[in-house]
Amino acid sequence: MGFSFFPKEFSFFKLFNEQVGYAVEAAGYFKELTKTGAFDEAALDKIHHLEQLSDNAAHEIIDQLNKSFITPFDREDIHALAIETDDIIDILNAIVNRLNVYKITKVDKGLIRFAEVIEESVKAVATAVKCLDHKKNSKLVNAACVEINRLENIGDDLRDKLIGELFENEKDPIEVIKWKDIYQDAETVLDICEDVSHIVDSILVKHS
Amino acid sequence: MGFSFFPKEFSFFKLFNEQVGYAVEAAGYFKELTKTGAFDEAALDKIHHLEQLSDNAAHEIIDQLNKSFITPFDREDIHALAIETDDIIDILNAIVNRLNVYKITKVDKGLIRFAEVIEESVKAVATAVKCLDHKKNSKLVNAACVEINRLENIGDDLRDKLIGELFENEKDPIEVIKWKDIYQDAETVLDICEDVSHIVDSILVKHS
Amino acid sequence: MGFSFFPKEFSFFKLFNEQVGYAVEAAGYFKELTKTGAFDEAALDKIHHLEQLSDNAAHEIIDQLNKSFITPFDREDIHALAIETDDIIDILNAIVNRLNVYKITKVDKGLIRFAEVIEESVKAVATAVKCLDHKKNSKLVNAACVEINRLENIGDDLRDKLIGELFENEKDPIEVIKWKDIYQDAETVLDICEDVSHIVDSILVKHS
Repeated sequence: MGFSFFPKEFSFFKLFNEQVGYAVEAAGYFKELTKTGAFDEAALDKIHHLEQLSDNAAHEIIDQLNKSFITPFDREDIHALAIETDDIIDILNAIVNRLNVYKITKVDKGLIRFAEVIEESVKAVATAVKCLDHKKNSKLVNAACVEINRLENIGDDLRDKLIGELFENEKDPIEVIKWKDIYQDAETVLDICEDVSHIVDSILVKHS
Repeated sequence: MGFSFFPKEFSFFKLFNEQVGYAVEAAGYFKELTKTGAFDEAALDKIHHLEQLSDNAAHEIIDQLNKSFITPFDREDIHALAIETDDIIDILNAIVNRLNVYKITKVDKGLIRFAEVIEESVKAVATAVKCLDHKKNSKLVNAACVEINRLENIGDDLRDKLIGELFENEKDPIEVIKWKDIYQDAETVLDICEDVSHIVDSILVKHS
Repeated sequence: MGFSFFPKEFSFFKLFNEQVGYAVEAAGYFKELTKTGAFDEAALDKIHHLEQLSDNAAHEIIDQLNKSFITPFDREDIHALAIETDDIIDILNAIVNRLNVYKITKVDKGLIRFAEVIEESVKAVATAVKCLDHKKNSKLVNAACVEINRLENIGDDLRDKLIGELFENEKDPIEVIKWKDIYQDAETVLDICEDVSHIVDSILVKHS
């Protein structure tokens, strides 16, 4: 068995895959929730649990970073990737919490559509992160980043359409306040996915 | 023709001037829009086009940065300056989009006043950025930064006055929701101009 | 008298203590204000004055940083600590300003409770920062960081409870708009305290 200069690389990739896996799970669970409208204590517990697992993975990545002399990419990129990936699940957690606090129980077609776009985007983030381990995957990483950008634009249009309709059709100002917050939060998930893709993209540029 | 150690410097300054020029154009166009209230598709297209030109300039700056061994200022300052200058036009784009989504068509004196202050501030940002190319201009840079700070304070007071009047006089809660968002967005442009001036200021301190 | 390699260290600690002292004073003053409801011009002046003192201290820290060859911790940690500590007093200033603009004069039990939690958290931040000067204090720093995290969770629950009650009981949408903003701002103070504790924590990890 030989000496390896890069013993830590593999564990970084493993930890990143683990972390982004929790985000995919959270996005899938969020999609299910929007179909039932059951934003209850059990839902809060489940998504909060996933958030803590993601948080633990981020901490482990940063711990390893502080201990490693050699890292697969720039230290600040590793740090930024762990923090931003964690932000995806943080905002999903915040949305479910908001839906619970606002006592939303009805199923809303607009939110279901948003949850579908969010799940697609988080899955593309997972692909981008998973393919970072090998240069030969750079086309797959690129394609995933393009897809994340496309979904962010869809999210912008969806938010504008839904908020426009809200002001047009909803006469109860309290409902306007609530749903404007919810749609804005939902769009923010896609912004954060795009932030992750920018980090991935800049890693790719440096290593191409 | 001799060899120059600083072949890239000039292109950095040229690109920064180009980028901040788009922000000045967007601020001028926004001022015109507030006088007609025509926040329509054509307006969205025009400001979105300027935003893309600014974005391209920012990308070219960052590309050049990755290729250059010698840069006129610290790499992180160049990066931050390109990103923050881009944020000016991003938020102007977001405001015009919001005015369109909220179906605002009436001309509002408060917003016209805001657009004037914004244009003055973005012009001062352009002066500060343009004067960065020579040490002999440091007094001009300083004066522009002081002006940007003064305009940001005027913006704070304007937002507070307008939102105070809104709560006092507007009885329709839906209108309160809409205009509070708009005035807050408008003030944010001035905050971002101040962020740019802080970067410029820190470049000046390091090179004085 | 001998030559010291670390002449600047002591002044950094002194300046950090001074700066965090202003934040403690502002949090104490904010607590008093919530008991009287006197969010008037005099209150604005006082908290704005404290904000300027904190700002001056932050500038002096950054000036010293630019002049120092040797610093007690990483330069970026010193910079981040000065900026984030300043953010505590900035947001307290913004809340008092909002309460003034929204013409809030009534005393609200929820806000009083928030102000108490905020004062406790800012005091814990002061303890954490003050104990950074000696390795032997690392347990005290750790305990303070745990406390700041505990108070941030209490703040989240308090905001959710208060906003939930607001939507349940308050029938005037204008009041809902106002108080939702206020409770969200109040919770943000505790988020910023937690951001400071994360910086303190990362300094501790690097030096342990």
